[in-house]
Amino acid sequence: MRNLHKQEFLITRADRERLGGHPGRVVWFTGLSGAGKSTLANALEVELFARGKRTYVLDGDNLRQGLNKDLPFTDEGRVENIRRVAEVAKLMLDAGVIVMTAFISPFKADRDLARELIGPPKFLEVFVDTPLAECEARDSKGLYRKARTGELRHMTGIDSPYEAPTKPDLVIDSGACSIDQSVQALCLLIDRPPG
Amino acid sequence: MRNLHKQEFLITRADRERLGGHPGRVVWFTGLSGAGKSTLANALEVELFARGKRTYVLDGDNLRQGLNKDLPFTDEGRVENIRRVAEVAKLMLDAGVIVMTAFISPFKADRDLARELIGPPKFLEVFVDTPLAECEARDSKGLYRKARTGELRHMTGIDSPYEAPTKPDLVIDSGACSIDQSVQALCLLIDRPPG
Repeated sequence: MRNLHKQEFLITRADRERLGGHPGRVVWFTGLSGAGKSTLANALEVELFARGKRTYVLDGDNLRQGLNKDLPFTDEGRVENIRRVAEVAKLMLDAGVIVMTAFISPFKADRDLARELIGPPKFLEVFVDTPLAECEARDSKGLYRKARTGELRHMTGIDSPYEAPTKPDLVIDSGACSIDQSVQALCLLIDRPPG
Repeated sequence: MRNLHKQEFLITRADRERLGGHPGRVVWFTGLSGAGKSTLANALEVELFARGKRTYVLDGDNLRQGLNKDLPFTDEGRVENIRRVAEVAKLMLDAGVIVMTAFISPFKADRDLARELIGPPKFLEVFVDTPLAECEARDSKGLYRKARTGELRHMTGIDSPYEAPTKPDLVIDSGACSIDQSVQALCLLIDRPPG
């Protein structure tokens, strides 16, 4: 680290949260491709927006075409992908926003790093627990078919591991819960005082 | 680019701007180290916040300790530093925020890339035009002294070039303008309809 001086700013997160009328949060969705992470983030954002909250969704596919477009789909690339997402989520949290992140984020160590960076009371880990068979049956992007034929490498659940959360803040069983029910559970989680 | 699908979200920037009561902007400060970029961004944020606007400052020193801590202080590292800042500013703009960026951003090509990425009507380039002699006399971080003795390499203005903007949206002559006057000029610029 060379000559860096931490710049102090007068307007703080607490000020921005007061202006917005609600605290910032990071709702970290994790689960297999096709589990429904982006669908849930989208539905949750619609509900939070209707309640007048400041929201933003950081989405795997979208960020991969912008900030993280230089990263490969290797294990190393995924680690750096998630590190950057966590750093951006932290900045947006500091801006007073309820940030939803919708990334497979398959490795426990990376999610733990994100939690550490963002700070446990603000970080909510949500496991979208859709079985591989169901994700593969949906195959909305055609990725599983390509992975099975060997056309696509490093597919989580096929030839790259998914480490399920051991202590998530919320588990969503998309087979048992409707999207509306899931959104209500997520809103309760977000409104819950930390600690 | 492999199998990426642009995720469509129902809540858009226009929605978030309506909720916030003002459009998002990116105010891109550029100038030498010690020119007063962070000081101005800080003062501008205080004024905008007092007016009820949603704001955030992306600051060189702070980002270098987070998102961009993996980057070296070479020309290549600076290019990637600025690319990432532009991408994050674009995301925050999409969240409806008035983003201020306070980076030396010495290369015209990088600032042009940022303008291109963010979109010209939303991108406001502000040249904090403080002469090198004045920045060096202030030397608030002691960097110029270290650069002159050779202890520090790649110092903009000493052994790394600064390419001044040719068509900035605003020039701030910090020798002629007080901080209050500069903030008033910046507020007028932000409120000006694009185009």
